[in-house]
This record gives sequence, structure tokens and C-alpha cells, in this order.
Amino acid sequence: MVIKVNFPIKKTNNNQYVNKANLGMQLETAINESNTFYLNANKAAIYKKPTPVQIVKVDYPMRSKAVITEAYYKTPSTTDYNGVYKGFYIDFEAKENHNKTAFPLANIHPHQYNHLLNIYKHGGIGFLIISWNHTNETFLLPIMNLKIFWERMLNGDRKSITYNELKEKSLLIKEGYNPRLDYLKAIDYYLENDINLIKGKLL
Amino acid sequence: MVIKVNFPIKKTNNNQYVNKANLGMQLETAINESNTFYLNANKAAIYKKPTPVQIVKVDYPMRSKAVITEAYYKTPSTTDYNGVYKGFYIDFEAKENHNKTAFPLANIHPHQYNHLLNIYKHGGIGFLIISWNHTNETFLLPIMNLKIFWERMLNGDRKSITYNELKEKSLLIKEGYNPRLDYLKAIDYYLENDINLIKGKLL
Repeated sequence: MVIKVNFPIKKTNNNQYVNKANLGMQLETAINESNTFYLNANKAAIYKKPTPVQIVKVDYPMRSKAVITEAYYKTPSTTDYNGVYKGFYIDFEAKENHNKTAFPLANIHPHQYNHLLNIYKHGGIGFLIISWNHTNETFLLPIMNLKIFWERMLNGDRKSITYNELKEKSLLIKEGYNPRLDYLKAIDYYLENDINLIKGKLL
Repeated sequence: MVIKVNFPIKKTNNNQYVNKANLGMQLETAINESNTFYLNANKAAIYKKPTPVQIVKVDYPMRSKAVITEAYYKTPSTTDYNGVYKGFYIDFEAKENHNKTAFPLANIHPHQYNHLLNIYKHGGIGFLIISWNHTNETFLLPIMNLKIFWERMLNGDRKSITYNELKEKSLLIKEGYNPRLDYLKAIDYYLENDINLIKGKLL
């Protein structure tokens, strides 16, 4: 009888350009830089929406521009990013996950989930981008796969997505120098191979 | 020889629901209410983006939520509204015009104009909504018609759009009770009759 021993395989990092410390903590920066790259390369026009703020008090000091002196953060009613790619409406929310084993669905507001479902219904493309800080991987999860986990939660079951579930139901986004997160490649894949997961049929 | 005299025809107002005082001053409210109507009627998902604010200082008083105590208005880099309608990407800026004879192009930031051109290039639908306060009319001006006037300005000519020019190059938006401004009807018209004025061919 031969006993097979599986030695751990030392994986090489193909990506020499990514500062791993930054990528985990700065998903937003990585996406914003990718969007700037896409815009300049004439690939897409996708922007982050401004942070919603409830402005309460504004001062107008002499010879100076208006100063907001009292304001509060508002719960966002939609997602962080939207825009246009190849004529398609694109809409997504981006979240970092610091949890080792699962992504808690509490990270997504119910109205954001409903917004993404709505976008799908109107023929748009909706998804989440989730960066898994412990493995330094970033995933694109189509709305219709998020729906599976969301409905499981609504049925009183698990309130999170495990790492393996996420890996199975999403695409790994290629990381690089420019764009730092080439998430449009993942969109292309779904559009060509599994469009119903990410885009409604309204068109 | 018979001399024809054109008596002024007294026009009746078909629209009994519109508060004229409000409509002129509150284009934003009218559009927001129309968008809520469209959303609830499952016609479209179009939202106003939050006002862009540069947050400088945030306080965290005990037992209370974060208070922004210093912030400034930022120049918007894109337009005020975007969303999805029938699978199309929709993007527009809304402006009230208090001028009697012409709409000054200075009301539109150059980067907003370029943004709308860019949206068109990527196969999206781009336009302006202009409310003409003196006549209480609201017009939808497709990006490619705005381009005519913008390039005239860049050529050193007139820096505004006259009332008659606007009337000729845009569609009057029907005003009513719900939606208050049925601008999607104007979109439908262009999509069916003159799509190249409003939507790029990328799809």
C-alpha cells in the first residue's frame, strides 16, 4: 500500500504589482482607480455616487464660500456605483469582508438588496463586489446568486455566505496594475455564458 | 383686397392639477416625485444622486451618532440623475431657467456636457431637462442637440439657447398629476423616431 503524501504546494504570486496591504483595506480606492482607467480607455463610464448627507446648517462667512457646519450621514437608499458599459446599465455595491469564514449579509442593507433586484427587473446589470481580506481575493457576485443566500436568510436559515459558497457562486476578479480590479472581464463572462444571473430580460 | 386680422386666441389650460407657482421653482421636486411614481409603477428605476460634499471634520458626541461639523459643497463631476429604463442607461441634468429670452449655457458645467457626450458614446441615453419659468414649460433636450449649441459657443458665437431654438430642438414634457413630469414619454418618442439624437449606437 502506497501512502500518498500531499505536500503543500508553494503557490507563486503571478501578480507583481498589487500592494496587498492596500488592496484589502482599500477596495473603494481600487474600484475608483479601475473606473478612472475604464473611463480614460473609453471602455465604460462608471462612477461612485457621493456619500448621502443630510445638511442641516450652512454658514456663509464673509468673502468665503459656504461652509456646512452641521450635517449627518444618511442611510444610502441605493448602491455605491453605477454607470454604463457597452450600452448596458451597470449597478453594484462594494464590500470588504474582514471575517475569516463567512460574509455576513447584514453588510448589505435590505433596500440595497431590493434596489439590485429592481435594477435586474428593469433590464440592468446588478451585482456585489466582495473583497475577502484574509485571502486577498475579490469576487463578483451576480444579483441572482445573492438572491439565493438572501432568501435562505429570510427563511430563517444561515445569515451569511461561506467562503466556499461565495467561491462557487461568483467569479474571482483579476487583479493587476491597470485596471487594478478588472471587474468588467467578469461582467463579460456572465454576459456571454450566464446572462440571466446578472441581467434581467427586459430589453 | 381682404385684410385678415389675427385675433389672439385665448388658450385654455388643459392641466388642472399643476400648481404653477411650485412647478417653476421646484423642478427638482417635480422630477423626484415623477421618479418615485415611475419606480412604484415598475416603469423605471431612476434616482437623483446625493449632493457631492467634501467632509472635513466629523464629531462623535457621546451616545449620539456622528455629526459632520465642517464640510464644503463640491463641484459635481457628473449629472444629477441616472438610472435604468427598459434596459437602457438614462443620464440627465435638470435646470430651471429664470431668463426670459434665452437659456445661458453657463448653467451647464463643461465636465457635465462632456459627461453626457461620454454617456452617448457608451450607448447610454443623455439629455437635459430645462424648465422655462416664464412660460411654465419644461423641455427635454437630447445631448446631440445640446451639442449644436455648445459647439456654436465654442466657435465664439452665441453663449445661450434662445426660447425658439429650444422649442425647435427639444420636446415639451407633458405635465400632469402623476407623474408630474412624464419625461419618459419624450424618451419613448426619441427612441422610436429619432434615436440618434439621444442614444449612442454602441449596443
